[in-house]
Amino acid sequence: MKLSDHGSKVKGILDSFQPDFEKIEQVLSRHFASHIPFVNEVSRYIIFAGGKRLRPLLTVCAARLCGRDDDAVFNLSAVPEYLHAASLLHDDVVDGGVMRRGKSPAYKIWGNKATVLVGDFLYGRAIELASRFGDTRIAEAIAEAVALMSEGEIIQLLQAKTPSYGEETYLEIINRKTASLISASCKIGALLAGVEKSEVQALSDYGLYMGQAFQMIDDILDYTADAGELGKAIGTDLAEGKITLPLVVAIEKASSKEKKRLLQVLSGGNPSKKELVWVKDLLINTGGLDYTRSQAKALVRLACESLETFAPLETKDLLHGLAWFVLERHK
Amino acid sequence: MKLSDHGSKVKGILDSFQPDFEKIEQVLSRHFASHIPFVNEVSRYIIFAGGKRLRPLLTVCAARLCGRDDDAVFNLSAVPEYLHAASLLHDDVVDGGVMRRGKSPAYKIWGNKATVLVGDFLYGRAIELASRFGDTRIAEAIAEAVALMSEGEIIQLLQAKTPSYGEETYLEIINRKTASLISASCKIGALLAGVEKSEVQALSDYGLYMGQAFQMIDDILDYTADAGELGKAIGTDLAEGKITLPLVVAIEKASSKEKKRLLQVLSGGNPSKKELVWVKDLLINTGGLDYTRSQAKALVRLACESLETFAPLETKDLLHGLAWFVLERHK
Repeated sequence: MKLSDHGSKVKGILDSFQPDFEKIEQVLSRHFASHIPFVNEVSRYIIFAGGKRLRPLLTVCAARLCGRDDDAVFNLSAVPEYLHAASLLHDDVVDGGVMRRGKSPAYKIWGNKATVLVGDFLYGRAIELASRFGDTRIAEAIAEAVALMSEGEIIQLLQAKTPSYGEETYLEIINRKTASLISASCKIGALLAGVEKSEVQALSDYGLYMGQAFQMIDDILDYTADAGELGKAIGTDLAEGKITLPLVVAIEKASSKEKKRLLQVLSGGNPSKKELVWVKDLLINTGGLDYTRSQAKALVRLACESLETFAPLETKDLLHGLAWFVLERHK
Repeated sequence: MKLSDHGSKVKGILDSFQPDFEKIEQVLSRHFASHIPFVNEVSRYIIFAGGKRLRPLLTVCAARLCGRDDDAVFNLSAVPEYLHAASLLHDDVVDGGVMRRGKSPAYKIWGNKATVLVGDFLYGRAIELASRFGDTRIAEAIAEAVALMSEGEIIQLLQAKTPSYGEETYLEIINRKTASLISASCKIGALLAGVEKSEVQALSDYGLYMGQAFQMIDDILDYTADAGELGKAIGTDLAEGKITLPLVVAIEKASSKEKKRLLQVLSGGNPSKKELVWVKDLLINTGGLDYTRSQAKALVRLACESLETFAPLETKDLLHGLAWFVLERHK
């Protein structure tokens, strides 16, 4: 499901991106091709599995806000989407996820080995593409995001099932694993447009705040969404022992009896439906979900404020709308 | 074991690289650092597990042949070694190898998940570093090698245990999985030195031929080496169903009875010591090992001829010597 398919109150804003989404789909199918049909098959499976295209859209909008809007911008916009696809391939191997965008994850079809290698291929191909725009800062931003994303996943892996960490570690994880690439998606658009350092920084900040909010909403949806609509199972974070912000709050606010039971569920690894409902109620009652949503909202405000340096153009309004959309999404 | 530790008739040549090896060790410990101690632990384990440092040495020598020999060259030389380390982490997960450079492979110590992610981190960090030299062609060459290396591994994975392929597919695999990075190691040295396109090409060619020869000798050693000296088990290619050049020749030249047995051993997956000895004898009797060595020798000659465009400097002699060393190595 693309953002554009989503029927929310920001739909009007998303509709205006329709021509961009169409061009993005075109460039996405253009640049990843390998000589090896199998690589294309796996790449195509993950790239065209119904991603939201948030990252390429941000590259396009960031460049447009900085005054550049040509084919090169769209070509560049494929880079963060390929990186995102590569990271999904590896994350599914790492997490052992059972559903991804409503379909079987790649490793279940082609095995861990091929999935890891096609992920590597996409990382390489994406950065190769990023290197072709004549500005080493673009490749550097992208490569930095790759390093940060893997660091985020590693911290999460090491911290799984160890509920001793708080909001700070949570932020460290989501900054790296999610916000770094969303920030880089904006940054490379600004770099390609050749604007001042301060404007590049403003768009990086916008992406960073938006990425943080995006992940917080993701972490809420993992407990509250409709599984069919979300395209993956509910409660997977709990099953994998991931301590997301709603849980951090719940662990802090719960009674000692509740906390004890919560830690048992968390370390058990395979919560029953009843346990999941109990945890969800606890997240509501302790204010974990509300707190997370209010933090996400504050971050969306910061994202919008980051763009103050830019003149009030239509694209700026759209970027504001896109940030608020993150709060409204159901999947 | 570094090249410099190897007691062969080219030892005199390698001795002259001793100061370079020392500087390479220094830069290798400088640029990979993560904020996450665990990432550093795994990275350090694979980077300082006794690699030959062939790739950084080639970057240094290529730049020197092109007239550049400063700290930047050494800093850049860390890039291909980090990529090599990243690919070893992923290859061991993919191949399920039991020994790497005489030690347990990383995935046996830290698990597949962390190993995949630290590999991703090193890929990202290496290309980030490569982007800092102000020439997008350097990052592009490096990212291209990442894509090619994974393609090579994928072809090999898909072709394992299917002995219907010949020398052409074998060359396609080793060009990608090994020669591409060795070629890029040379190319980036030339690019950093800022020489003409023809000289960049000459050094890329040198690396490509040398990389092909290097892998052919590797494939011979997998049957003939002393396990202790090689740092890994003998016969692993056979156990993994990898059809290397010696085997391609043997399949072609063997009697129909021998071929039948060979294919049985190959598809069995876990050859006994007796079967391994039988296969090795077959590789000798069919001329598989001799043919592979003669091809490697021809490639080393081509590697040396690629450098004809350069004046006969001491570094050129050393690069010739290094190419011939590839033929002489025992591990």
